[in-house]
Amino acid sequence: MAVSDNLIDYIYEPVRDDLVGVESNFHHIAQSNQVQMDGFLTHVLPKPGKRIRPAITLLSSRFHPNTGEIPILMATSVELLHIASLIHDDSIDRSSLRHGVPTISNLWGHNTAILVGDYLFATAAIWACDTGSIRVLRRFSETIQELSVGELMESHSAFDLSNTYKHYWERTYNKTASLFRTAAETGAILSGIEEKHIQNLTEYGRNLGMAFQIVDDILDFEGTEDQLGKPVGADLLQGTLTLPAILLMERYPDDNPVPALFRSENIEANSKRAVEMIQNSSIIADSKKFAAKFCDKAVLSLSNLAETRERRSLEELASYILGRKH
Amino acid sequence: MAVSDNLIDYIYEPVRDDLVGVESNFHHIAQSNQVQMDGFLTHVLPKPGKRIRPAITLLSSRFHPNTGEIPILMATSVELLHIASLIHDDSIDRSSLRHGVPTISNLWGHNTAILVGDYLFATAAIWACDTGSIRVLRRFSETIQELSVGELMESHSAFDLSNTYKHYWERTYNKTASLFRTAAETGAILSGIEEKHIQNLTEYGRNLGMAFQIVDDILDFEGTEDQLGKPVGADLLQGTLTLPAILLMERYPDDNPVPALFRSENIEANSKRAVEMIQNSSIIADSKKFAAKFCDKAVLSLSNLAETRERRSLEELASYILGRKH
Repeated sequence: MAVSDNLIDYIYEPVRDDLVGVESNFHHIAQSNQVQMDGFLTHVLPKPGKRIRPAITLLSSRFHPNTGEIPILMATSVELLHIASLIHDDSIDRSSLRHGVPTISNLWGHNTAILVGDYLFATAAIWACDTGSIRVLRRFSETIQELSVGELMESHSAFDLSNTYKHYWERTYNKTASLFRTAAETGAILSGIEEKHIQNLTEYGRNLGMAFQIVDDILDFEGTEDQLGKPVGADLLQGTLTLPAILLMERYPDDNPVPALFRSENIEANSKRAVEMIQNSSIIADSKKFAAKFCDKAVLSLSNLAETRERRSLEELASYILGRKH
Repeated sequence: MAVSDNLIDYIYEPVRDDLVGVESNFHHIAQSNQVQMDGFLTHVLPKPGKRIRPAITLLSSRFHPNTGEIPILMATSVELLHIASLIHDDSIDRSSLRHGVPTISNLWGHNTAILVGDYLFATAAIWACDTGSIRVLRRFSETIQELSVGELMESHSAFDLSNTYKHYWERTYNKTASLFRTAAETGAILSGIEEKHIQNLTEYGRNLGMAFQIVDDILDFEGTEDQLGKPVGADLLQGTLTLPAILLMERYPDDNPVPALFRSENIEANSKRAVEMIQNSSIIADSKKFAAKFCDKAVLSLSNLAETRERRSLEELASYILGRKH
């Protein structure tokens, strides 16, 4: 824990002041907007989260002399977009808690969650407008398309055993890597850096996001119920085949608890058995290798950029994401 | 019916070709996008609706030599935004039909409705990006904020008798007039007309939208169940106090069925009585006077514009909206 906290401090160090700016924008949004939204925004915005996505935007904007405050506006937009999509996701998954805090849909119902999510998508768009870049706004909008396609893929393929790697990679890009990509890409665009380097940072964000989601999917099997704040193997219980479960299906095609679980037979016993088979095999380690490969690709795509302190931060962020425990 | 069909033909005549362009954009969107969205988009997009909002955008863009196809892009965006918001509204209101057609939430569930709505908001934003105007995108985003605030006001004030005119006007602006305003305002902005005239067209759209919603609220009490596709007085049954109901509360403060209805007492009898009291008094006519006043204001705000065929269409549109029966 301490090591990882030190690492994140080191990573964020070059953009610390700008991240304070993002946080102060959040306080401003929570307090100054529509009276109807006040209570909801105060509930979701000013939480001291890790703010990984805005940090990526800010770091990615530092490879070319940029125009002052503009990347801070986009970092604010990127995190608002993230929060809006979580509010809709939590309503869809009927999640009652997120990071131990009651969700909007839990506290105020699904209808409020839909509307507060819509409101925050729109607020994120307004902050993106303030950057003055149509290209950034286009990428911002494509991200919302991709997020909704990713969630739709997940919900429509629930309890479907025919899902392959291809489906998993596509879903992972849409539901997670798309926004990591946008975080890096928009920072790069707004810095005014040349096109080739925008592409490098875009690739960095995409690969980092793929790794982030794989690690998430591993943690779903690796942690304890206390750490996760939800049952171990929750994805499987919801009918979602993630990478560890796909590997389990592949390696034990005959005596495998997942098909029975997906037919709702002996749910508790079959889920426990699936989790144990994953934990007591090389599946966790092998899944981590996939994540490590994406992190390597992310770092490699930075190799054409100047060797600055910010580049070092982005490289270390890949290590941090690979090693994170929650 | 025939008179009103002729009137709408006359109104749309100057922008008929451009409206065909909007329709062909919809076919393109429904067919060429993400495979996961195909069935949903084919279900909601190519319906031959009235397309009032895109017609307003196109007509409003005709008071200054504009840049070719660009208003058609925005007209497409405005209607997509409208469709996206209806999908979320239908999910929130648990409506099973809209204009006699099953809703997305009815056919595929609430989760799909949230995601398809998000996807279409984003698609609308991409079409707005194609106009190249940040100012238009900002207004577009503010509209989504206002729509969600309007719906939230409606859902949070349900069964609340203390709602006043002020609350009703504010809700009506947010849930309906905001988008009519945007339809007119963005058309004007994209035409390159001078600021004073942009403001004139903005005011036109806002007032027209207020009238549109008041007429909607009147029709909820005036029609028959067959015409409406839902029970007469459905708003009241959902706990929403619209203008006719506010007038009813005001005029019959003592022997009034609404408070009992809102306490869920004798729902059928009290609802029937409220509808009859509204139908058999001057309340319908008086509500229409409010709508007529907004239409007059809308037409008046056009008086500084050149007296063109398009202006005539916008003026007639106000009459059409005031006289519509469904």
